[in-house]
Amino acid sequence: MMEWSVYLSGEIHTDWREQIVKGTSKLDLPVSFSAPVTDHSASDDCGAHILGDEDKKFWYDHKGAKVNAIRTRSLIEQSDIVVVRFGDQYKQWNAAFDAGYAAALGKSLIVLHDPALTHPLKEVDAAALAVAETPEQVVEILQYVTKGQLNR
Amino acid sequence: MMEWSVYLSGEIHTDWREQIVKGTSKLDLPVSFSAPVTDHSASDDCGAHILGDEDKKFWYDHKGAKVNAIRTRSLIEQSDIVVVRFGDQYKQWNAAFDAGYAAALGKSLIVLHDPALTHPLKEVDAAALAVAETPEQVVEILQYVTKGQLNR
Amino acid sequence: MMEWSVYLSGEIHTDWREQIVKGTSKLDLPVSFSAPVTDHSASDDCGAHILGDEDKKFWYDHKGAKVNAIRTRSLIEQSDIVVVRFGDQYKQWNAAFDAGYAAALGKSLIVLHDPALTHPLKEVDAAALAVAETPEQVVEILQYVTKGQLNR
Amino acid sequence: MMEWSVYLSGEIHTDWREQIVKGTSKLDLPVSFSAPVTDHSASDDCGAHILGDEDKKFWYDHKGAKVNAIRTRSLIEQSDIVVVRFGDQYKQWNAAFDAGYAAALGKSLIVLHDPALTHPLKEVDAAALAVAETPEQVVEILQYVTKGQLNR
Amino acid sequence: MMEWSVYLSGEIHTDWREQIVKGTSKLDLPVSFSAPVTDHSASDDCGAHILGDEDKKFWYDHKGAKVNAIRTRSLIEQSDIVVVRFGDQYKQWNAAFDAGYAAALGKSLIVLHDPALTHPLKEVDAAALAVAETPEQVVEILQYVTKGQLNR
Amino acid sequence: MMEWSVYLSGEIHTDWREQIVKGTSKLDLPVSFSAPVTDHSASDDCGAHILGDEDKKFWYDHKGAKVNAIRTRSLIEQSDIVVVRFGDQYKQWNAAFDAGYAAALGKSLIVLHDPALTHPLKEVDAAALAVAETPEQVVEILQYVTKGQLNR
Amino acid sequence: MMEWSVYLSGEIHTDWREQIVKGTSKLDLPVSFSAPVTDHSASDDCGAHILGDEDKKFWYDHKGAKVNAIRTRSLIEQSDIVVVRFGDQYKQWNAAFDAGYAAALGKSLIVLHDPALTHPLKEVDAAALAVAETPEQVVEILQYVTKGQLNR
Amino acid sequence: MMEWSVYLSGEIHTDWREQIVKGTSKLDLPVSFSAPVTDHSASDDCGAHILGDEDKKFWYDHKGAKVNAIRTRSLIEQSDIVVVRFGDQYKQWNAAFDAGYAAALGKSLIVLHDPALTHPLKEVDAAALAVAETPEQVVEILQYVTKGQLNR
Repeated sequence: MMEWSVYLSGEIHTDWREQIVKGTSKLDLPVSFSAPVTDHSASDDCGAHILGDEDKKFWYDHKGAKVNAIRTRSLIEQSDIVVVRFGDQYKQWNAAFDAGYAAALGKSLIVLHDPALTHPLKEVDAAALAVAETPEQVVEILQYVTKGQLNR
Repeated sequence: MMEWSVYLSGEIHTDWREQIVKGTSKLDLPVSFSAPVTDHSASDDCGAHILGDEDKKFWYDHKGAKVNAIRTRSLIEQSDIVVVRFGDQYKQWNAAFDAGYAAALGKSLIVLHDPALTHPLKEVDAAALAVAETPEQVVEILQYVTKGQLNR
Repeated sequence: MMEWSVYLSGEIHTDWREQIVKGTSKLDLPVSFSAPVTDHSASDDCGAHILGDEDKKFWYDHKGAKVNAIRTRSLIEQSDIVVVRFGDQYKQWNAAFDAGYAAALGKSLIVLHDPALTHPLKEVDAAALAVAETPEQVVEILQYVTKGQLNR
Repeated sequence: MMEWSVYLSGEIHTDWREQIVKGTSKLDLPVSFSAPVTDHSASDDCGAHILGDEDKKFWYDHKGAKVNAIRTRSLIEQSDIVVVRFGDQYKQWNAAFDAGYAAALGKSLIVLHDPALTHPLKEVDAAALAVAETPEQVVEILQYVTKGQLNR
Repeated sequence: MMEWSVYLSGEIHTDWREQIVKGTSKLDLPVSFSAPVTDHSASDDCGAHILGDEDKKFWYDHKGAKVNAIRTRSLIEQSDIVVVRFGDQYKQWNAAFDAGYAAALGKSLIVLHDPALTHPLKEVDAAALAVAETPEQVVEILQYVTKGQLNR
Repeated sequence: MMEWSVYLSGEIHTDWREQIVKGTSKLDLPVSFSAPVTDHSASDDCGAHILGDEDKKFWYDHKGAKVNAIRTRSLIEQSDIVVVRFGDQYKQWNAAFDAGYAAALGKSLIVLHDPALTHPLKEVDAAALAVAETPEQVVEILQYVTKGQLNR
Repeated sequence: MMEWSVYLSGEIHTDWREQIVKGTSKLDLPVSFSAPVTDHSASDDCGAHILGDEDKKFWYDHKGAKVNAIRTRSLIEQSDIVVVRFGDQYKQWNAAFDAGYAAALGKSLIVLHDPALTHPLKEVDAAALAVAETPEQVVEILQYVTKGQLNR
Repeated sequence: MMEWSVYLSGEIHTDWREQIVKGTSKLDLPVSFSAPVTDHSASDDCGAHILGDEDKKFWYDHKGAKVNAIRTRSLIEQSDIVVVRFGDQYKQWNAAFDAGYAAALGKSLIVLHDPALTHPLKEVDAAALAVAETPEQVVEILQYVTKGQLNR
């Protein structure tokens, strides 16, 4: 395996993805990243904007969610590792949905969240091969997994 | 198909499961139901109670979540239809996880929730074949799907 | 295999399904049949009737088509043999869709149509294990396949 | 994913494929396209021409349809996204067959057709992640899906 | 597993199937058997007889082989164990084809043939979990596999 | 699911299987059990005894191991839950092989062993949904999983 | 798809593989070929030669057939198209086994044989997308399938 | 297939991996190798070191085993051939687990061990396509499988 494919799912309001990408880049790890579209309003509006507006909120959202699914399902299916980050705000059911989707496909799942969320995330964590609290830990896992290096 | 297998996932604080079971029973539909263990404290404690106590909350929860997974994954995998109900309280990430898991397995997904939750549930709804607001609607869908009867 | 499951897809305006069911019943063949809902207006209206009306024709149809899919996909997936009948009227794209769906799942496909439709159906026929012109021929195939009897 | 594979199935009498290819090329999108053989007579004659003539129309068509299937099935199976275009003429059962085949394989399906065809295509549309009316919309979807760019 | 499904493929000119069926019946083993249609001429003629005669030998055979495939593929797919018997006459390529088909599906393969055929059958034998020379040995394997009894 | 299928793999020198079977029987749990042949010498000798003796130990063992595989692979593939017990003697590589086989098939894995074996079994335990130390715990898990009952 | 992978199985005593390779090379087709080891004696002896000699012919052949299977199964699984050639000599059960194996994996199958073999090969031909008589025809199929060119 | 992917699982205390890598390198074989992390203490400590220390040995080991599984499962799933080496020390249940995991995924399995271990490894050997005693033999197998060369 020349390169590991890692999909970064979940929370889009902090810079955790950038931290992981920079961290692995600095270490020159053989990893390529993908992610959902993280521009919140583009993600909300893409369906109705491209395919035609909708009066009902349900269909407006529905069209957008499906266009996003074209991207996210392909990327999850082609990844080796799926990292799902849960923040302390919002419902984030799409993150948990992605985790379930990835688990059923047999992907290696890494969950990234604050210890405060341990109880409500217990079913998601139970399906994971690692539960991290910081992006640095995810970088260290990727370093160990792809290069066998453990920093002591 | 003599009998349809329906798994009822999600919210455990209202009687929506009983309503669906009674409704289909009254109509004598060829449907058998399964569900996670809905006794909240049993569900939380099963792992540590059976397999040994844990000091750390994380492992206490972890053991319980995994013992529950023995039940839920088998039942989801053997069902034809998965109904996932979201209520207005709690994180309910396990419900969204189940929805993603079921979607990746190609199960027919019915999501049951209040219209107020449409926006945060748009990715889950986008994977569903029906989005219902009431247990009665789920019963009507099951009646139509299994018997071809539509009440006008 | 105690009983063969046969799904009867396609045209709903003639009594070809009844002919096949009666024919196999007379011969006491170990076959159980399933089919889409063949009540045309129920099939069109089920989504909007159960889950709420829609102003736009697209979403009205969409909701109905998805509720029907709960039934049809499960039945196709659980069948051993899929018979798809094409008549001389209407677009019947749902029939061709079912044929493609069944073919990709590796189901044994029997196509039933008039020789006049040979050219436009050549791709569908190419995926079939038998191309019949009459319901009687389908009954004879089922008799041969399930009991090894050939009427000479 | 360096490059997305998109299969363009269906109607062969207008230049919709060229429009999509040009549109994505102008935007320099990481997309590679494939398609069935769109030379109508070559597509009809390939089987009998290469493998030997047939007196019966059925076998003439059959041989051709199967040789074409060598191409189309491999390309569909290796694509990430399948776009199926329905025009206003001909039976186009092969297009609906491809849509069903792609759906059963879990491919992301985009259907492209005039609103006038909404009702007869409802089952096909129900399996799609996007229903577009113009090639430009398909290009915009591909731009959004592969690059996350939405033109406002 | 209440009952084991065993498919008996291959040579149709001796009574090896009857010997196995009788042998397991005498021992009251929880085994159910299935097989291709073993009436040679019915098997050859079924396609053209039911679906219409053909002038060309190729298509005559083709139609028959496909009708037989409806039976054989379903039965192989639903079996736990596939026994393939090779005799000392005829090409028997269908038997080897069934063995390859069963191997690719991960079925437990038992090959039954005379030691004289060891060399040309080495690739088939290499995919098998047992290579027997007599029907009695197959019965003994089934007795051991289903009941754990070894006759000493 | 009327009945859960549980495969009991591994150590054959103590009565742990009987304890689990009796325990679940007393509780009237909807569970059916299967297991490898636990008669050690029959298990060693079945291949050569039925299919012909071998001079070389390797082939003697090989034939036996393959005949046993006919039983064990089918039973593992058809089970919902696989329990693997490791004792304190012997190599028991077949038990670990079964655990890996079950894990790759996505079966729910329960590992049963003494805490003294924690370190060498860590990779096996990491793939399990429960790690038990006593047969009683396995019974309690089965009670909870199948009936939702937790004894407090 | 930049390049099509074609596996050339079967008869090893004529130069049909070279003819196909040269023919496609002359046309500069985007095709890469693979094949079993066609050095007959190396193929027979590889197992015993590398892994240790055997007295019994059965195990001598067995070891060789399994070492060859490491090559052939991987190559078949990674090919898009499998061409199987049957000659007029030898049992060639390995060729029919490969055809069945490829068919069960859903590979596009092209069978190449003399018309004299039509009857005994009818089950194999029934699983094929093309039945050719000459290597030139296979080249023409590959030209049409990969480039859409039909020579008139 | 430009390059064969070979995963080297099992024993980490001798230089067998280096011997195989050097041997194939000298022959310029088109093979790329992967392996678990073979630094024993890094492998033991990675989980707790990166994700946080644990008091209980069980969880310490558990976290490490799971982080290692991110690496090993991906590499096994993407390999064509899995070589598993058993030494004469330690439990090596992880090696047998990998063998079972690889077997269930249909990978070509080569087992490498001393003849003294034949009896306890018989179930593992029974799932293998080759059982070798020395790294040189593995190199010769890889030479034969990838290049068709047999050294006489």
